[in-house]
Amino acid sequence: MDIATILGILSGVGFIGWTILNGNDPQAYWDIPSLAVTMGGGIASVLISYRMNEIINVLKVTAQAFIGKKTSNEDIIRLLVRLSQKARREGLLALESEQEEIDDPFIKQSLQLIVDGVEPEMIRDCMGLELSTLQSRHETGQGIFKTAAALFPAWGMIGTLMGLINLLKGLTDAANIGPAMALALVTTFYGAILAYFICQPIANKLKVKSQEEILQKEMIIEGILSIQAGENPRLMEYKLKTFLSPKQKEHYDTQSSPGSAEAGRGEATGEPITE
Amino acid sequence: MDIATILGILSGVGFIGWTILNGNDPQAYWDIPSLAVTMGGGIASVLISYRMNEIINVLKVTAQAFIGKKTSNEDIIRLLVRLSQKARREGLLALESEQEEIDDPFIKQSLQLIVDGVEPEMIRDCMGLELSTLQSRHETGQGIFKTAAALFPAWGMIGTLMGLINLLKGLTDAANIGPAMALALVTTFYGAILAYFICQPIANKLKVKSQEEILQKEMIIEGILSIQAGENPRLMEYKLKTFLSPKQKEHYDTQSSPGSAEAGRGEATGEPITE
Amino acid sequence: MDIATILGILSGVGFIGWTILNGNDPQAYWDIPSLAVTMGGGIASVLISYRMNEIINVLKVTAQAFIGKKTSNEDIIRLLVRLSQKARREGLLALESEQEEIDDPFIKQSLQLIVDGVEPEMIRDCMGLELSTLQSRHETGQGIFKTAAALFPAWGMIGTLMGLINLLKGLTDAANIGPAMALALVTTFYGAILAYFICQPIANKLKVKSQEEILQKEMIIEGILSIQAGENPRLMEYKLKTFLSPKQKEHYDTQSSPGSAEAGRGEATGEPITE
Amino acid sequence: MDIATILGILSGVGFIGWTILNGNDPQAYWDIPSLAVTMGGGIASVLISYRMNEIINVLKVTAQAFIGKKTSNEDIIRLLVRLSQKARREGLLALESEQEEIDDPFIKQSLQLIVDGVEPEMIRDCMGLELSTLQSRHETGQGIFKTAAALFPAWGMIGTLMGLINLLKGLTDAANIGPAMALALVTTFYGAILAYFICQPIANKLKVKSQEEILQKEMIIEGILSIQAGENPRLMEYKLKTFLSPKQKEHYDTQSSPGSAEAGRGEATGEPITE
Amino acid sequence: MDIATILGILSGVGFIGWTILNGNDPQAYWDIPSLAVTMGGGIASVLISYRMNEIINVLKVTAQAFIGKKTSNEDIIRLLVRLSQKARREGLLALESEQEEIDDPFIKQSLQLIVDGVEPEMIRDCMGLELSTLQSRHETGQGIFKTAAALFPAWGMIGTLMGLINLLKGLTDAANIGPAMALALVTTFYGAILAYFICQPIANKLKVKSQEEILQKEMIIEGILSIQAGENPRLMEYKLKTFLSPKQKEHYDTQSSPGSAEAGRGEATGEPITE
Repeated sequence: MDIATILGILSGVGFIGWTILNGNDPQAYWDIPSLAVTMGGGIASVLISYRMNEIINVLKVTAQAFIGKKTSNEDIIRLLVRLSQKARREGLLALESEQEEIDDPFIKQSLQLIVDGVEPEMIRDCMGLELSTLQSRHETGQGIFKTAAALFPAWGMIGTLMGLINLLKGLTDAANIGPAMALALVTTFYGAILAYFICQPIANKLKVKSQEEILQKEMIIEGILSIQAGENPRLMEYKLKTFLSPKQKEHYDTQSSPGSAEAGRGEATGEPITE
Repeated sequence: MDIATILGILSGVGFIGWTILNGNDPQAYWDIPSLAVTMGGGIASVLISYRMNEIINVLKVTAQAFIGKKTSNEDIIRLLVRLSQKARREGLLALESEQEEIDDPFIKQSLQLIVDGVEPEMIRDCMGLELSTLQSRHETGQGIFKTAAALFPAWGMIGTLMGLINLLKGLTDAANIGPAMALALVTTFYGAILAYFICQPIANKLKVKSQEEILQKEMIIEGILSIQAGENPRLMEYKLKTFLSPKQKEHYDTQSSPGSAEAGRGEATGEPITE
Repeated sequence: MDIATILGILSGVGFIGWTILNGNDPQAYWDIPSLAVTMGGGIASVLISYRMNEIINVLKVTAQAFIGKKTSNEDIIRLLVRLSQKARREGLLALESEQEEIDDPFIKQSLQLIVDGVEPEMIRDCMGLELSTLQSRHETGQGIFKTAAALFPAWGMIGTLMGLINLLKGLTDAANIGPAMALALVTTFYGAILAYFICQPIANKLKVKSQEEILQKEMIIEGILSIQAGENPRLMEYKLKTFLSPKQKEHYDTQSSPGSAEAGRGEATGEPITE
Repeated sequence: MDIATILGILSGVGFIGWTILNGNDPQAYWDIPSLAVTMGGGIASVLISYRMNEIINVLKVTAQAFIGKKTSNEDIIRLLVRLSQKARREGLLALESEQEEIDDPFIKQSLQLIVDGVEPEMIRDCMGLELSTLQSRHETGQGIFKTAAALFPAWGMIGTLMGLINLLKGLTDAANIGPAMALALVTTFYGAILAYFICQPIANKLKVKSQEEILQKEMIIEGILSIQAGENPRLMEYKLKTFLSPKQKEHYDTQSSPGSAEAGRGEATGEPITE
Repeated sequence: MDIATILGILSGVGFIGWTILNGNDPQAYWDIPSLAVTMGGGIASVLISYRMNEIINVLKVTAQAFIGKKTSNEDIIRLLVRLSQKARREGLLALESEQEEIDDPFIKQSLQLIVDGVEPEMIRDCMGLELSTLQSRHETGQGIFKTAAALFPAWGMIGTLMGLINLLKGLTDAANIGPAMALALVTTFYGAILAYFICQPIANKLKVKSQEEILQKEMIIEGILSIQAGENPRLMEYKLKTFLSPKQKEHYDTQSSPGSAEAGRGEATGEPITE
């Protein structure tokens, strides 16, 4: 899990807990029926909005997005450069033997298409379609949390309205108006916490992760098509490096020079990129 | 009806009902004139916003969207693969005899165009136009519920304002300010329930259903054009499978292997996709 | 005028009127100075936002949009099919004699371009430009009502703020705080009615009408270019029918079969579309 | 200055002034420190948001947009038609002598490019770039006023919060709570007036003016390229007229018939547009 | 640092400070626990929304954006014109010696590609990719501050809700309700200041800076491709000048005439742009 996520959760829970404990009566913030109507109502609206299997799927994917680890862009560039060099030396069919050592299913699948001799236009189409299906699945995931982030405060307000109606209807003794109003406000408090501390940040993080994954897949598509077209590996490496941030680029160059001498040599000695 | 929808409706109604019954006076939440002005006003604004036949049409389509069942993407891919194989063996005209067994009017209609020998460009144009007309009809449907979701809280607020004006104007006895204010707030409560429990979730669900249907139709267009172009059925199958989610893809592969041996054979034995 | 619009206006006015009459004092909702500052202020902001001639023009067009009647898409398809058949039999110049019987200026004008022998590319450009000018005029119209719908509640709030400041500044007797507050809230009430019952629904209806008109004009452009290209009238009919909703399509087919036997014959007898 | 702007400013000031004077104490609405924190804070946030020279530039351009006058689209069409006729009779180089009599720098500059024999593709590129730079400058201008319209109410709220905190902290005598609260609300009032009466309408007007100017420039580009291509002046006139509204078109035709007989003749006598 | 930024910060702090000091009790606005829950909660939500390295990176870039200085567009045009003239006189390889004197890494890198003889299409692709990676990095930066600007008021509201619940729950003595409420409102005040005085303006400024940088890079791409294509330097200068505002253009022409006589000569003497 990302260090920022852990820090965020701990510090958020800490600040809320500390404020609650500093109050006159910590129990004032805890009311099961209020929590039930806010969470229950919000989840009910989300259930009507989406399909069951989508919701279950998104919960799984979200857990994975927060915990899972992915291959770095730099490693993928190195892999693609190596494949490109091999393909130029030994032909496209030589890539078949490489497939088994590759973990990423997206690269594996595309290599199979190259080896099978499918036309570049068709490969670009298939990979593009796969990318846009992936993107729309990601958007559904973000959409579920964004919808929840919009509905929880609404249900918090519904809960508070119900509390106020109850309170005002039975208003006989001015003395207990305070605690009753406090109780009515608790649902708004729950709605705000659920939306602004949980759902909205998760939707944001899912978007960030999705953008990263799609960028990586776009980079892979560029690389695969370049390999198939038999482009110069050094030129391909240069092109793929434009997908890196300046810091990653620097890091990549430092790592590549000693490590993969073959790929980095031309650059180090100032040789021209073209042959 | 989707299990999530049923669960959502039941749990939402349950949580609201439970909160009402737990209150001092369940009747405090029930006021016919308040309901009339909130719902009536909101519906009046929706009526001015749209045309009568659109509104009636949307209500029908919505009912269908919640209840109706549609053919799965996997079955459609299997059907298209079978048609493609037949067309390659026996020629495009052989598809005419297949038409009668196909339920989906969109596929049926496109097959007729192929059999009639209409040019691919024209078929793509016609099917694309049909898709965009469908999409704009769907958007009108979502728009009606989104408009309603925005107008109900506004009319809830109008009702509360009218209640407050009435209450404040006749303010002589401080004792009955409570119940009168409770009554004024009831319209805001109705507006919130109508918007966040009914209209907004319906608009969301219609959007999800529309995206699914349009994706399916795009898949059909790809398939039909591939059949007409005489592309390799296995390659077409590969391309259409990019429209499936990873889970559906896995499920499709499992089902296809024993079931439709012909389509799955090449894959199972690791034969190349191209001929 | 559309039946939904009439129903909407009547029911909206009815619900508001009924709520007012049910109150303690119907006169509480009526205050000329409050109406003046809400409407006057909102209109003043709209006047600064747009040009005088645009505002006047939009008011005219809006009246027309609510009252005026337009040719149905089905009639236009029939007309275009008839023109297409004539052009194929007697040549493009024969269309000149038809022009006088056509009401729609957009079709008339385009036919003149065909008769004059202007190139297809130029006709598409001119008609496309005309369409986009129309669209931007429509958007200005919707924009004026949307702006008003956003500004009226703001001025309602300004009115209420002024009422509250006045009330609080002169607060000496707690007894008359109620009626004064009621008066202050009346401007918010006016702002909400003007926005959510009048301006927002009008802006929505203008958008719906604009989409319909633009779809119709796009259909005409497709038809005109098809006539000029000398395409098969039956194929053109098939293409134009994709602009219809399923219900209109069905209705069109029922009407066409007995009425315009020539156009419908091929379809009825199952003849192929191509020659 | 546009008549609508003057009317808007006068009526807006009038309605506010009248409401203030009708109140118990006109001085209740006037508080220098409140104005200072609302305006000062809003302007401070705008200053951090943009660059100094942009802000100064926008203020200048805004003044010009409200006061300045521009050439009508109809006059520009007449000018372009005249230039087109001259170019066809005497060649493109003959346009050099016309340049001096043209005020519009955009037309002047483009004519120079034609006379210099620059290629059409290059002219379209340069004029397109100029247009998009203009558009992004306009958007910055609108953006500054939109930002201000969003920040002034926020600072009005900050002022009111500060007033309330001050008031509640020192709450000892319930008697002076009214006037103190009135004072606290004054900043919200200022923020609303600054946003909804001044900044938002100016941003709207700038957008309207910008759209007009860009449409005019697009029309000029079409005309200039048509002149360079040596297209028929009557056809060009027809094409450029699609940029006019129906009313302007009618007005143009009425004016052109007697005035510029040469350009209008063909149309009046029903001659075909093509030669 | 931009003069407007300094002015904005000073005046904003000044107006807030002055209002606080003018109040009854300046200490009313200062409460460490309130600041902790508002800032801490907002930052916690931002931490969950983004990755740690992105957040750290954005803080660095932001500091640089406010302090750093960049080369003016005019200087870059002059540089590109000089390079273009050299390339036409001495060939593309002569650009290699120029590289060392160029500071801008984007120009340097592109020149290397030209010298290496990479194809124009490939150069355009690489530079375009680099630009879009840069743009998405900039958008992440703006996104972090926009997210913070949306979350701080939400956490201010959460803080106020907690304060109100605490206050109402323990409501026994009506005398101390005032100060307790003041304290509850302080978190809303902090949230508003953090959002509308700090985060929103920074997000705006980052957007303005990003647009400037991207425009400059687009101008460089146009110039580099023009140099490679061997276009006339004067025509290239004319094209690049369309990226300048009218004021910059005027300034550029004034500076260029005496300074770089060679580049300005043709223009001054009215020579045609083409050779």
